[in-house]
Amino acid sequence: MNQLFYSHKIYDDKILLPKDEAHHCLRVLRKQSGDTIRVVDGKGNYYKALIKTEDLHDCQLKIIDCRRKFGYKNHYIHIAMAPPKNHSRVEWFIEKAVEIGIQEISFILTENSERRNIKIRRIQKRAVSSMKQSLKAYLPAINEMVSMIDFLTNCTNKERYIGHLDSTNKNLLFHKAIPKSNYCVLIGPEGGYSSDEIKEAQKYEFQSISLGDSRLRTETAGIAACHILNIINEE
Amino acid sequence: MNQLFYSHKIYDDKILLPKDEAHHCLRVLRKQSGDTIRVVDGKGNYYKALIKTEDLHDCQLKIIDCRRKFGYKNHYIHIAMAPPKNHSRVEWFIEKAVEIGIQEISFILTENSERRNIKIRRIQKRAVSSMKQSLKAYLPAINEMVSMIDFLTNCTNKERYIGHLDSTNKNLLFHKAIPKSNYCVLIGPEGGYSSDEIKEAQKYEFQSISLGDSRLRTETAGIAACHILNIINEE
Repeated sequence: MNQLFYSHKIYDDKILLPKDEAHHCLRVLRKQSGDTIRVVDGKGNYYKALIKTEDLHDCQLKIIDCRRKFGYKNHYIHIAMAPPKNHSRVEWFIEKAVEIGIQEISFILTENSERRNIKIRRIQKRAVSSMKQSLKAYLPAINEMVSMIDFLTNCTNKERYIGHLDSTNKNLLFHKAIPKSNYCVLIGPEGGYSSDEIKEAQKYEFQSISLGDSRLRTETAGIAACHILNIINEE
Repeated sequence: MNQLFYSHKIYDDKILLPKDEAHHCLRVLRKQSGDTIRVVDGKGNYYKALIKTEDLHDCQLKIIDCRRKFGYKNHYIHIAMAPPKNHSRVEWFIEKAVEIGIQEISFILTENSERRNIKIRRIQKRAVSSMKQSLKAYLPAINEMVSMIDFLTNCTNKERYIGHLDSTNKNLLFHKAIPKSNYCVLIGPEGGYSSDEIKEAQKYEFQSISLGDSRLRTETAGIAACHILNIINEE
C-alpha cells in the first residue's frame, strides 16, 4: 500500500516536511536518511523525494521526481453546505467528499441553520488526511462560512443547482448536469431552506434539483451530489 | 418534520411500543394518551396509531390507518462487505446505506480482513434509527458474518459484482448494472481481495467492476455502490 506525505513547503529541489508528517515518517514508519518517500503538495504535484535529514524539526527531502497535475480533472465541483449541527458529521462529509473527488467546499449560514460556525482547522486537517489516504495530489479549496446572500452574490460557477425537498421538484441532478462543466450545488440545513431563500437562489440562476426520492441528511445529500457529479464525469 | 416510531410488535389493530421508543414518545416528546403518532414495522407497513396507555413498559397504541408496502422498490440491493477495522466506520456505512436505500447487508470474512467480527446489535440499532430518520418503512435484512466461500456458495442474487482495485478493470458498475434487477455487490477489505478470492468469486459468476477512478475506503466503496444502484433505478 502506498503511503503519501503532505507538505506545502517546497523550495526548488527541496521539500521541508512539517513536524507531524516528519514524526509519522521518522518515528512511526521508521524511515531513514536515504529512503525514498512520496509527497504531495495539495496543488497537483506528486513528488518522489529522498530523506536528507532525520530531524523532526527540520526534516529535509531532496526531490528526485515530480509529476505535475497528478489526477487533474476537467470538471470542477463546488459544494456549498449549511453545515449540520453535529460537527463530526461536517468532518465526515469532508473526508468522504475528498475521497470521492471535490474541488471546492463552502459553508453557508441560512435562516434555519442550527450550526453558525465551523472548525476550519479541524476540517482542513481532515481534508489533508483524506487526500493522502485516497492517494490524491489536490486539496480542495475550503472556504470560511458566509451568509447565503453573500455566497449567492459572489458565486462564479457556471452550472448552479440548489437541492431542496419539494414534492413537485423532480429534476434529478443526475439528469440535469452536463459532463465536463463547472458546478456549484447548494445543500440546505436540517430544517431546509426558507421559501425566500429558494426564490433568492433562483434569481442568481440556481436551478432546483432533486438527489433522488430518499430523504437524506445534510451531509449525505452533500456526498450524494458530489458522487453524482463524479459519476457523470467518469470516462 | 415528521417523527416516526418503530415497533415489531403488531397484533391485529394494536401496536405495543418497545420501551426505548415509548420513553422517547412519552417522556422526551411528552405525547399523551389520545395523541396520534406514526409507526413503522421495518417490513413496509406505515401505521397511524392512537396512544391508549401512557405506560413505558406497556405502551399500547390503536391502529387507525395502515399503508402497506410504503416506499416499496422494484429492485433489490444486497451489499456484502468485508467490514473495516474501525467499527464506527461499519456503523456509519449502515446509517448511510439505509438513508440512501438498501435491501440486504452481509458481512464477509476474507483473507485480508482486519476485522473478524461485527457488533450486530449495534448495527441493527443504527439501522432502525436511520430508517426512522429517513422516513422509511423497510429495514434491510442484516446478516451475521460468514466466510467468503460460504457467502459465494449461498448467494442467490441475480446480478453479481465484485469491486476490486485493478488497473485493467474499467467496467464501471454504473454502466454494467441493469435497472429493476436483483443485485449483489461484494466490497473487499482494506488490503483488497487475494487473487484466489477474485478467481473463486468469478466461478460463482461475480463480474469484476470498478466504482470509478478514486481509491475509496471500504465503507465509502459500499456507499458508492449502493448509491450508484439507486441512481440507475431512479425514475
